Amino acid sequence: MGRYDLALIGFGGVNRALAELISQSGDRLAGELGFALRVVAITDLRAGSLVDTDGIDLTPLLAAEPGELSFAGLAGGSADPRNEWVIREVPADIVVEATFTNPSDGEPALSHVRWALESGKHVCTTNKGPVALAGRALKRLAAERGVSFEFEGSVLSGTPILRTAERMFGGLEITGVQSIMNGTSNYILGRLEVGIELSAAIAEAQELGYAEADPTADIEGHDVQLKVMILANEVLGADLRREDVFREGISAITPHEVRDAASKGLRWKLVGSATRHEDGSVDARVAPLALPADHPLAGISGPVNAVAFHTDLLGTVTVCGPGAGRVETAYALLSDIIAIHQRHADDETAPVRRVLQETHRV
Amino acid sequence: MGRYDLALIGFGGVNRALAELISQSGDRLAGELGFALRVVAITDLRAGSLVDTDGIDLTPLLAAEPGELSFAGLAGGSADPRNEWVIREVPADIVVEATFTNPSDGEPALSHVRWALESGKHVCTTNKGPVALAGRALKRLAAERGVSFEFEGSVLSGTPILRTAERMFGGLEITGVQSIMNGTSNYILGRLEVGIELSAAIAEAQELGYAEADPTADIEGHDVQLKVMILANEVLGADLRREDVFREGISAITPHEVRDAASKGLRWKLVGSATRHEDGSVDARVAPLALPADHPLAGISGPVNAVAFHTDLLGTVTVCGPGAGRVETAYALLSDIIAIHQRHADDETAPVRRVLQETHRV
Repeated sequence: MGRYDLALIGFGGVNRALAELISQSGDRLAGELGFALRVVAITDLRAGSLVDTDGIDLTPLLAAEPGELSFAGLAGGSADPRNEWVIREVPADIVVEATFTNPSDGEPALSHVRWALESGKHVCTTNKGPVALAGRALKRLAAERGVSFEFEGSVLSGTPILRTAERMFGGLEITGVQSIMNGTSNYILGRLEVGIELSAAIAEAQELGYAEADPTADIEGHDVQLKVMILANEVLGADLRREDVFREGISAITPHEVRDAASKGLRWKLVGSATRHEDGSVDARVAPLALPADHPLAGISGPVNAVAFHTDLLGTVTVCGPGAGRVETAYALLSDIIAIHQRHADDETAPVRRVLQETHRV
Repeated sequence: MGRYDLALIGFGGVNRALAELISQSGDRLAGELGFALRVVAITDLRAGSLVDTDGIDLTPLLAAEPGELSFAGLAGGSADPRNEWVIREVPADIVVEATFTNPSDGEPALSHVRWALESGKHVCTTNKGPVALAGRALKRLAAERGVSFEFEGSVLSGTPILRTAERMFGGLEITGVQSIMNGTSNYILGRLEVGIELSAAIAEAQELGYAEADPTADIEGHDVQLKVMILANEVLGADLRREDVFREGISAITPHEVRDAASKGLRWKLVGSATRHEDGSVDARVAPLALPADHPLAGISGPVNAVAFHTDLLGTVTVCGPGAGRVETAYALLSDIIAIHQRHADDETAPVRRVLQETHRV
């Protein structure tokens, strides 16, 4: 059986959940998937870095409280994250990028992805920044190096959206997408419907862990803007920049408006949409919309997210599922690794194949 | 470029829509998919049969009114459908079965599928009968002959349900499904919600073309029963017979009950569900349920159908889309043909490969 050696960049909730999955269910997964997973490097802004090319023992790391974890005293450990060195130099097959992303330039995640691809390593990431802001360049780089760049978790965590668009609709044309991709704003709109004021609804969302301390990215549609760029570029073949995507958030909506609409059977939702026109151009925008009850997105409530694909032959197909969550997002990474395996297991030249052969020799 | 020769069994709305697609968009599809499609035989209970191993000219057939079509006077034509002879003897690569099915024994579709597989031909069908009642035996037969048996259209027309379950959830466990798979009963329940009596709602559904002259199969859950057997057997690995699946329809529900539930935020839906228990056994049932507003199926209205997959790592993922329609169901057949191509294009021994080689020689 083959094996993939992973470098986990970032050891917050998501990569920690992936490590738990490998530690607890790795054998079962290997039996099902036909390959094993081993972690050979971990870096984290707070914990530092840890490298063991014979495979890191995850059990003690996962037993530690996340905030108290430090790699400094361990063999192969350092207080320094050493991201660039780990990504470029440690012999991993797949770099699993789950740090954070600046919405204006995609850093530091963008550099992590680029270093990995430049080093001939496959990359999977849950970060929307690199995909939204530099997806085309990164895919070109991956193609040049004969490796894969996978990012299912950049929209709707592990809910299969990008892969559904890529694999489930052969022979038909996707003419547009409409989506609810921010659970926080969706939760808040639901609370406005029952008469709660915006500020109180935001406080509730923060208490429930949906909203960040600074809720601007959620409330003002910045988060959805990056995600709808990913849908437009990946699903509709566009090449949009951030300034091409109109953005309006939900902060100007009043409970009165939302309740008034609800009394007429309409439901306000923050909708990210993209449409391909007959001349091939693609428009994308983020704006609140009052949807009629029979609209495929009208019933999407709370933390559930959804993407409606409008197609020529099949009408509208909508995929709904979790939009966040550490285990759900870790599953996105696992699904990316499976996709890498499917694409490269038979490669003669890719690094994966070399590892598979080495494993067979042993 | 390779080519698949098709035998269309049944030339009602669905296979006619597939023929229109091939006739109007065959060149575009070939460019996109990497293979061409050609129809070499058509059989139909009313029109008879037509065979041309050099490829049937579809244009005049599609120009004729469906009810007036007769193959008897044409070269290679006959008033006799000659189903068994056409399926067994005409050198087609794929038999496209879209006749009708008796819900108790799956005939005549079941025999059509079996004859085709016995003859070493790939099969795609939109008929739920053969899949629900004999899916396991037919898949075994297909495996023995080295061919594929595909049936995405047996549930939710072209909406990718079975293929989503098969391809999108690697590495996680699907623990159960809940579904709305009958547009007629779903439409009728929506009308009961606004105070219309059952008999009037049925008449409306018949006028709109949703319901058959005899609406029993829709109203009493027989249609959903077969479909939920397909989900249980294909998605959860069960081997259920019809008598294993509890069935209750919507005929006993009153508009009062439906409106009363709606006033409490509940929506009555005819739900087909299947659950895998810890011991591996699978329960499946069809029954009306009053769903809370935040249930993933609560917002599914009218002709839209939906399947909610409950999973271990990813929570619930729901796929919603058309449940019927001639073009939408024809797309299911196209998606099956694409799946056959993906699985067999590299086969050295399968009939497809032989045809591909012949085509290349020409």
